[in-house]
Amino acid sequence: MSIGSVEIELKAIFGDRYSTSSSTRSNYSRGEDTYDPVLSKAVIFPESNQEISTILKLCNEKNVPVVPFGTGTSLEGNVVGNEDGITISLEKMNKILAVNVEDFDCRVQANVTREQLNEHLREDGVFFPIDPGANAAIGGMAATSASGTMAVKYGTMKSVITGLTVVLSNGEIINTGGRTKKTSAGYNLTNLFIGSEGTLGIISEVQLRLSPIPESIMSAVCHFSSLEEAVRTAQETIQYGIPIARIEMLNKDQMDISINYSKLQGVNASPTLFFEFHGTELANKESIKIVEDLSKNNNGSKFKWAADLEERNKLWQARWDVYYSVKALVNNGRVYSTDVCVPISRITECVKFAEEEVNKIGLRAPMVGHLGDGNFHVLFPYNPHDKHMYKKIREFSNKLIDKTLQLNGTITGEHGVGLHKKNYLLKEHPDNIPVMKTIKRSLDPNNIMNPGKIFDLN
Amino acid sequence: MSIGSVEIELKAIFGDRYSTSSSTRSNYSRGEDTYDPVLSKAVIFPESNQEISTILKLCNEKNVPVVPFGTGTSLEGNVVGNEDGITISLEKMNKILAVNVEDFDCRVQANVTREQLNEHLREDGVFFPIDPGANAAIGGMAATSASGTMAVKYGTMKSVITGLTVVLSNGEIINTGGRTKKTSAGYNLTNLFIGSEGTLGIISEVQLRLSPIPESIMSAVCHFSSLEEAVRTAQETIQYGIPIARIEMLNKDQMDISINYSKLQGVNASPTLFFEFHGTELANKESIKIVEDLSKNNNGSKFKWAADLEERNKLWQARWDVYYSVKALVNNGRVYSTDVCVPISRITECVKFAEEEVNKIGLRAPMVGHLGDGNFHVLFPYNPHDKHMYKKIREFSNKLIDKTLQLNGTITGEHGVGLHKKNYLLKEHPDNIPVMKTIKRSLDPNNIMNPGKIFDLN
Repeated sequence: MSIGSVEIELKAIFGDRYSTSSSTRSNYSRGEDTYDPVLSKAVIFPESNQEISTILKLCNEKNVPVVPFGTGTSLEGNVVGNEDGITISLEKMNKILAVNVEDFDCRVQANVTREQLNEHLREDGVFFPIDPGANAAIGGMAATSASGTMAVKYGTMKSVITGLTVVLSNGEIINTGGRTKKTSAGYNLTNLFIGSEGTLGIISEVQLRLSPIPESIMSAVCHFSSLEEAVRTAQETIQYGIPIARIEMLNKDQMDISINYSKLQGVNASPTLFFEFHGTELANKESIKIVEDLSKNNNGSKFKWAADLEERNKLWQARWDVYYSVKALVNNGRVYSTDVCVPISRITECVKFAEEEVNKIGLRAPMVGHLGDGNFHVLFPYNPHDKHMYKKIREFSNKLIDKTLQLNGTITGEHGVGLHKKNYLLKEHPDNIPVMKTIKRSLDPNNIMNPGKIFDLN
Repeated sequence: MSIGSVEIELKAIFGDRYSTSSSTRSNYSRGEDTYDPVLSKAVIFPESNQEISTILKLCNEKNVPVVPFGTGTSLEGNVVGNEDGITISLEKMNKILAVNVEDFDCRVQANVTREQLNEHLREDGVFFPIDPGANAAIGGMAATSASGTMAVKYGTMKSVITGLTVVLSNGEIINTGGRTKKTSAGYNLTNLFIGSEGTLGIISEVQLRLSPIPESIMSAVCHFSSLEEAVRTAQETIQYGIPIARIEMLNKDQMDISINYSKLQGVNASPTLFFEFHGTELANKESIKIVEDLSKNNNGSKFKWAADLEERNKLWQARWDVYYSVKALVNNGRVYSTDVCVPISRITECVKFAEEEVNKIGLRAPMVGHLGDGNFHVLFPYNPHDKHMYKKIREFSNKLIDKTLQLNGTITGEHGVGLHKKNYLLKEHPDNIPVMKTIKRSLDPNNIMNPGKIFDLN
């Protein structure tokens, strides 16, 4: 259990890619979450599957815990350090290994980010459609089963990944899945590792399905006089079966914050939906007509169309910056984000409940949502030293979780469990946890892989 | 290991729903596969999750193997009996438990068939889009990770299932996943059980996503002078990004067989594609124009459109009956079906290879394919007593598997591994199998769950 037992060997192999400096350890001590940082004993920077294997083999023999670390954009304490262990930064695993445009697929190392990949693909007529907001690492997005603004049309990491390279706790390197669109060849190990948050193995390569860039992309903004009307419009759009690419909600407060932070012009600080349509021009126009009617019936404003690519990018940049816009409200502040997801027929009730409870506790809490999937976030900016405030936030979160579970929802749509939601996972899946633990013990018998995340083993 | 140890208790609980008659045991001794039947010692017919739990608890205590059995339409020996064990027929688990039209979801017991479900949904404007041809049980389709003719648009069982009820080997009943479109709440147990072919637990209920019935459905037939031209058209249609709902290939011989068996009129015995477009009328027309151009460039015939629902149903019935049409070629015959799947850019090469090899061995072997997914089947009708012929078929299959793996393909796109493809799985995923076995041992320590399927444990 002591890192001393592996230090000499790792230093000999990795040289200055094995760091024990406190500034480095501090930089890799947590993600974008509300947890207090925990410094691992060292941070190591492997450059290949084989190097990751070497690290895990050694650590497994000596029972040294490891924490895999991507871009550090996770929100649930998923990458908080381990004071007895080593954080493995994958940042040097950043190569795009293959792109097969004719098959709409590619293979990347774990730390390729979504923006890096899309930049690389720009000339090829294809793109990687999973957009969680942050410029996250694709390996990290796999590990948390991420999704984001375009999941309503293009699915989640679970649906676009067809294969992985995973380094197991004992150092074995396996390649799961493959390049085909479908397979029934044995257990679906690919989807077992997706969402396992580094607790079963380290995802080092990802095989992805890409999508053709649509002929026509049209983005619009629509304002409402109440949040409920905005949410109901989104609900009805989905229930109508419109093949929309994005349907994002920002409440009044969030619009106000975003207008200031992202210098948005021509939009109002009122409950708002951002729409985006992907398809042929003709098909988009058909969809838009229906959505405009639905919005109008809910007293929505006229659609304000992004005039060009630049205006569209500005709009979505504002959406991506929501987290940072909220964080900027407090000096050295943090943001606590809820992440519940409910069946679409329950989304209006759930958002309304959240709004009422927020009003009751009198805290500032802007809201955003991927409403097409029934997933939304309440964002609390707060000062980490204010323990009383944090307690109130967690009390709100507990209530929202209970409501969500009553509505057949899930405690986390896309952020994962990490350290923050372990108790909530016990509420949602008490009967699943023994099975998860059995699998964990069988694949990581020494419990070295990101221990304490998702559940406590003992 | 002896069934005697559980027989008295099971008889006492299940009465005449526990059968040891040889006719019953024979009826449940195999699926639609080429395996010789194996009679289990008994067949039992539970009616609830709790009854399945009772059976498994007893069998697990006494080390009695069990084989879960749905409609018996599997093709790889997945449900062949166990001479020391009990076959568990799920046929009394045939209730539709809930339909939520506004959320496009439903929950069914394992033995609800796809036709039964779609009949039930007919008035609701939604449908269950996974169509493997046979009127299979949805639990069985989950267990083999099935797909079929509409996967190119609607995905596979893996993508439409959001939750399961599973009875584990020790009798514990767990509910995985849930009703939401997405979740990141812990390990993805749902997808671990999907495709596990009854070796990790018995799937007793399935939570499914449904799709809205499209405004317009248009089906067409197009003939080609060579198989290669037909396949290339399919390949190009996918590469063009056309959102087609079905694109099925039948080669010349299969068309000849189907015309006779299904009394098809107005179509020719030449290499053929069956197309189907789902969408708004306008969007379909756009897609059709492009596909017609692609077909024409490959010397395809004019499209022959199904005039009405009846004609369309007749067309697809012929497609569904392909397996039986081939089986009918031999008295008391069986059909050996290959099931390889390759990236779309390799499909033309792979089908051409299969065609050439079939010609070399001089056996009759019609072909059909879900070309949009890169998946096709070579069907060998044969007499089970003709061991020489079977040997030739397997030699062909071995060659096709090797070619497929060279082309980055998978040994099974949708039928699963069962007993037939265990050696092939070793070729495709040698490094995955130890992990699969570790999981199997951890969840089924006494190896009672459908033992010997997918891999040999020892």
